[in-house]
Amino acid sequence: MHNMKNLDFYAVILSGGSGERFWPLSTPERPKQFLKVFGGKSLIRQAVERLDGLVPPERILVVTAASLAKATRRELPELPRANIVAEPCRRDTAAAVATACGVVERMGGENSVAAILTADQIMKDVKAFRRVLVDAARAAAASDDIVTMGVEPDHPATGFGYIQVGKPAGLRMRTPFHRAVRFVEKPDAKTAAKYVASGSYVWNAGMFVWKVSTMKAALLAGAPALAILEAAVADRKNRVASVMEKFYPQLPRISIDYAVMEKAKNILVSRGAFGWDDVGTWSAAERHLPSDGRGNVAKGGVTLLDVSNTVAISEGPRIAALGVDGLVVVATGDSVLVASKDRVQDLKKLLAEMPAK
Amino acid sequence: MHNMKNLDFYAVILSGGSGERFWPLSTPERPKQFLKVFGGKSLIRQAVERLDGLVPPERILVVTAASLAKATRRELPELPRANIVAEPCRRDTAAAVATACGVVERMGGENSVAAILTADQIMKDVKAFRRVLVDAARAAAASDDIVTMGVEPDHPATGFGYIQVGKPAGLRMRTPFHRAVRFVEKPDAKTAAKYVASGSYVWNAGMFVWKVSTMKAALLAGAPALAILEAAVADRKNRVASVMEKFYPQLPRISIDYAVMEKAKNILVSRGAFGWDDVGTWSAAERHLPSDGRGNVAKGGVTLLDVSNTVAISEGPRIAALGVDGLVVVATGDSVLVASKDRVQDLKKLLAEMPAK
Repeated sequence: MHNMKNLDFYAVILSGGSGERFWPLSTPERPKQFLKVFGGKSLIRQAVERLDGLVPPERILVVTAASLAKATRRELPELPRANIVAEPCRRDTAAAVATACGVVERMGGENSVAAILTADQIMKDVKAFRRVLVDAARAAAASDDIVTMGVEPDHPATGFGYIQVGKPAGLRMRTPFHRAVRFVEKPDAKTAAKYVASGSYVWNAGMFVWKVSTMKAALLAGAPALAILEAAVADRKNRVASVMEKFYPQLPRISIDYAVMEKAKNILVSRGAFGWDDVGTWSAAERHLPSDGRGNVAKGGVTLLDVSNTVAISEGPRIAALGVDGLVVVATGDSVLVASKDRVQDLKKLLAEMPAK
Repeated sequence: MHNMKNLDFYAVILSGGSGERFWPLSTPERPKQFLKVFGGKSLIRQAVERLDGLVPPERILVVTAASLAKATRRELPELPRANIVAEPCRRDTAAAVATACGVVERMGGENSVAAILTADQIMKDVKAFRRVLVDAARAAAASDDIVTMGVEPDHPATGFGYIQVGKPAGLRMRTPFHRAVRFVEKPDAKTAAKYVASGSYVWNAGMFVWKVSTMKAALLAGAPALAILEAAVADRKNRVASVMEKFYPQLPRISIDYAVMEKAKNILVSRGAFGWDDVGTWSAAERHLPSDGRGNVAKGGVTLLDVSNTVAISEGPRIAALGVDGLVVVATGDSVLVASKDRVQDLKKLLAEMPAK
């Protein structure tokens, strides 16, 4: 078994989200990472538990919106209070990574290694994920590279970004590492098929590992304003919350991919496969829930008669469905969604039609 | 304008119902006659208001289940308390009519005329209904016949019973009256088509008018136990509620059609047309609700995007529907129904599948 002895290793879980994709179960006050519908525990709780024995709670950080900080602390009571880093406003992932880098430097110094992980994704093979994470941490510690945890695609998904992989990195580890050639945005179906057929593209899962000194240099090169934020956060003379309150409103809204990854030359990418899924829609969610013999997924108070291929989830009024096929029906005390399964990707448009509260 | 001067006339509204057909808006505690979804006022309130100026509130009786008496009084505050006649248990329409006959006799005597009306039906042409009612009352007062208010069919419905009409009764009134030949149960589609094509069948709307002495004789001939109940109720020495409590549990569960109408020879039937509908299912209800350009009926908090031919009614959580067609979606705080429109007649089967509370 790999381990991270002699490694000053931190895990940073980015926990944002607008709560639109799994409406009405998810809401702005309770985005996807808090849903317990996948596996009985919330996705953010699962994200922390995946690190059991690998990273102690004192070294797990969660960067989240101020409005979600309380709910996050309640969900993760084992984390020290200071490890829930609350952003005063939303400024996309680059600001969150820079802040996290500063907090890790403040706690452990420039040689500490940190992994940026996600709060709302599913990984079916936790053992494989942990193996890749350990290897990536060791690779990041031993080099000045940013190590991205790519995911070997098993279908030409159009919902994810891709990373083109280049030459093998020549590391003697179980996980294969390559030099990253380039990051590309979500492709159309034809391009996605080409990528997957080529064998030289992996999914960009938004997870990557770096030494503090490496990320600092990358920020300085790609987004100087964020390098200043990082340094101010790292400075123990400052209060982290005060620095964030001062800086955040001025920061650009940019992603870490845009600010750093797409520009940096020193990027390694792993080719892992650990049952990763971003689960972007209700119809994608279905793949991760148990179904009956007619293709129905039912959770909560649900009665079905002559129903097929339907997702029915209630956290409020009982759902009683009769003679329908291919629907997503989700009920809470406030709202009921009734959608054709092949239209759930348009949920945002539906929400835009709704009257403001 | 017809009137009922010199006529001791009572209206008896039968208000039973199991609350299953319009579930979840209707429930055993709030059956169909209390729904406000058709026309903004409850159906039972509309049934009373149709009699405005024709029958004073003191002469309007409502026979209902004891469990619905309180809700009925609240819905019809203008009726004297004693006019809400509460049945201690359900014994079908024959017992209700016998009890009503006794109450009318008690209030007005053997020459009083009463109309049995319904609490949960729709009549679009109130003026025409009132005209037929007045004519039927005059016909009943002037004869020893029971006068049934038949409805001229406009399509071969299989959901109603029919009455075969015979020779004209020879009354000099605007409404045509005929001798009734026979009452028949709900027919199959082929038989219904034959009935309608023949021109000699009308729908049995369950509304009929009689003199107290006429109904007493009919009960004695057809259902002697109910004649005894009638006499005991009519006797002012008895308390109505006490008589009902004593008799009801022993009474047979039979309909007035079975107990009286199908046997009696002295039955007239009117051929009226006043936009009558029994509204038996959610898909039938649709005919009586305003729809948008895509065939959708929406009531309450409802948002629709790319939805067609759908009934969406909320009295609880907001319904948001996306890309669906031909559904009935009804939400209350307790329950959500999602049914294919062509399956709503199987609502009882669905309810039978549900766990007991």
